[in-house]
Amino acid sequence: MKQFKIAVIAGDGIGPEVINEGIKVLKNVAELDSGFQLDFTYFPYGCEFYAENGRMMDDDGIDKLKAFDAIYLGAVGFPGVPDHISLWELLLKIRKSFDQYVNIRPVTLLKGAHLPLVDVKREDIDMLFIRENSEGEYSGAGDWLFKGQENEVVLQNGVFSRKGTERIIRYAFETAKKEGRSLTSISKANALNYSMVFWDQVFEEVSREYPEVETASYLVDAAAMLMIKDPKRFEVVVTSNLFGDILTDLGAALAGGIGLAAGANINPQRDSPSMFEPIHGSAPDIAGKGIANPLASIWSASQMLDFFGYEAHGKIVLDAIEQLLLEARVLTPDMNGTASTSEVGDRVTDII
Amino acid sequence: MKQFKIAVIAGDGIGPEVINEGIKVLKNVAELDSGFQLDFTYFPYGCEFYAENGRMMDDDGIDKLKAFDAIYLGAVGFPGVPDHISLWELLLKIRKSFDQYVNIRPVTLLKGAHLPLVDVKREDIDMLFIRENSEGEYSGAGDWLFKGQENEVVLQNGVFSRKGTERIIRYAFETAKKEGRSLTSISKANALNYSMVFWDQVFEEVSREYPEVETASYLVDAAAMLMIKDPKRFEVVVTSNLFGDILTDLGAALAGGIGLAAGANINPQRDSPSMFEPIHGSAPDIAGKGIANPLASIWSASQMLDFFGYEAHGKIVLDAIEQLLLEARVLTPDMNGTASTSEVGDRVTDII
Ligand SMILES: CC(C)[C@H](C(=O)O)[C@@H](O)C(=O)O
Ligand SMILES: CC(C)[C@H](C(=O)O)[C@@H](O)C(=O)O
Repeated sequence: MKQFKIAVIAGDGIGPEVINEGIKVLKNVAELDSGFQLDFTYFPYGCEFYAENGRMMDDDGIDKLKAFDAIYLGAVGFPGVPDHISLWELLLKIRKSFDQYVNIRPVTLLKGAHLPLVDVKREDIDMLFIRENSEGEYSGAGDWLFKGQENEVVLQNGVFSRKGTERIIRYAFETAKKEGRSLTSISKANALNYSMVFWDQVFEEVSREYPEVETASYLVDAAAMLMIKDPKRFEVVVTSNLFGDILTDLGAALAGGIGLAAGANINPQRDSPSMFEPIHGSAPDIAGKGIANPLASIWSASQMLDFFGYEAHGKIVLDAIEQLLLEARVLTPDMNGTASTSEVGDRVTDII
Repeated sequence: MKQFKIAVIAGDGIGPEVINEGIKVLKNVAELDSGFQLDFTYFPYGCEFYAENGRMMDDDGIDKLKAFDAIYLGAVGFPGVPDHISLWELLLKIRKSFDQYVNIRPVTLLKGAHLPLVDVKREDIDMLFIRENSEGEYSGAGDWLFKGQENEVVLQNGVFSRKGTERIIRYAFETAKKEGRSLTSISKANALNYSMVFWDQVFEEVSREYPEVETASYLVDAAAMLMIKDPKRFEVVVTSNLFGDILTDLGAALAGGIGLAAGANINPQRDSPSMFEPIHGSAPDIAGKGIANPLASIWSASQMLDFFGYEAHGKIVLDAIEQLLLEARVLTPDMNGTASTSEVGDRVTDII
């Protein structure tokens, strides 16, 4: 029997609450099938761990996590712990250490989810964002000169490597080809006169290897507008780390809200674990109240099943989410319902 | 009699068509009043000029423009002329040479304009974006190393100076104070660990000088989502060059479309001309057809009147745009009408 080892980092704020429901659903799905087994190992990493130990994870945390098939992460960050610690020493550290260079974010309006736009048809919101996840604007390189003086100047340096740019674009072409959909590149060469000129050039080069994939290219500002005006233009989308961050949150607003937005951080070589996480944050304001929406976390669990090669099971989970939305009975307050986090998880398992 | 000298750069594509209507309206408004006079001087700068002369403007173009009170610009860019020429040697060159460090973009849904959102009230879309316009991500600094080799790497360096960051944030506080509205800063310190940490610090410092201004601060990804979910949170907004670019196009999609989006590039010291432009581009696909929407260009003309200190006249123009939208008779095709560019301009002057 196939066995997958999952490291669970529930993390901060609402993280543990939503992850619980995801695990409930995963266990439920695994029982449907005797073909595979899921083992969960819990890691208490996060801001509480930091408060006790002065670090976000064990010193050998990355080594410990390395042995797993996947990481299932809730949320990271809590007031009082600065981002350069909470995020750079946990979330971003994992993304980078395990070379999870592909961030996959579906921006699809599920049946039953709320459509916030007047002029657009439901089925027009069906995009798959492939975000560069390892470098670019998030390289962390920069300088802070003449601190506190009149001539103080701060540099933030985006780093776009040939390898990093080519592999994400190639991954996107492979995905578009497999899905038989068009691929849109989003960049900003008219203003970012080095990085994005390079990005466009690589996109153009790689596109020659995929004559069967229809392509388009937009400036990030125009893309932000068109995602609202005419989202059906976008099918598979590839973009940089920062642009992907911004546009997928915009996408979440179009596709049922942040409570439904899932993300997978993929290492395609599979020489290190990939990580699955809801893209909402730790939401400290509602933490502990049992009202957080677990659907994004459950959708990420479905992405994990896909990644393990159990797409049929991933689809069962996604279909269950859709049915729950269509029923519109058991929903958390962010979706205008009155159900608790665990009631939503229970309902999803019932449907399954 | 007060006299204002306006340099007109109609530019490329639909630029001349929409600028014509703006000038028609400006002349019309000036006639209402014997208190001021507007003089227009035309400069043929743009991609056609480039095709003939090998440069986007005269070598002493900046010197020539310097003497004017304002520049009224249509659009720049045409297929075949690379951006690093068309934009960097005209639009961006003017913004930088004349230290037009404030880019003001109203994101207000005018009466009669189309509301594209289901869950939001019309009056909730009423934001004033103040975008840094001289440096930051658009500094043009970077490097392209090991070109064509395996280890090729491209750097794009954002440059945030103390002076540049402080002055835009201070300008925004002054504006918010004058208008009695809240001020929201949009940044991304959790990922851009130099520039945006600095930005947040300066915002925090300057805010202490304005205890009467209510403030808020959002991450750019969250802001993109919230502009759709809950735009009434945003009143006056201050943000960086790139984030302002993206979010104001998103804002245009919410506030009646890009055909209505105006922008002012302001030099607050007034030692060089400020520039007023619709924020749509040159739209080569519809150029020459007489169907471009001139309302953004007319709204920029209204911003110019405000800037000259003739706010009452600016308001007459804006009110006329609103009335035209409410009538919903004379509109260009992008607004589902059948009128031509000049018919819309004529109707605005008739209303005035
Ligand atoms: C928490 C933050 C650093 C992160 C990012 O910007 O990547 C988040 O917004 C996301 O999109 O996963
Ligand atoms: C043309 C381009 C360089 C410009 C920008 O990004 O600033 C435009 O998009 C704008 O917003 O005025």
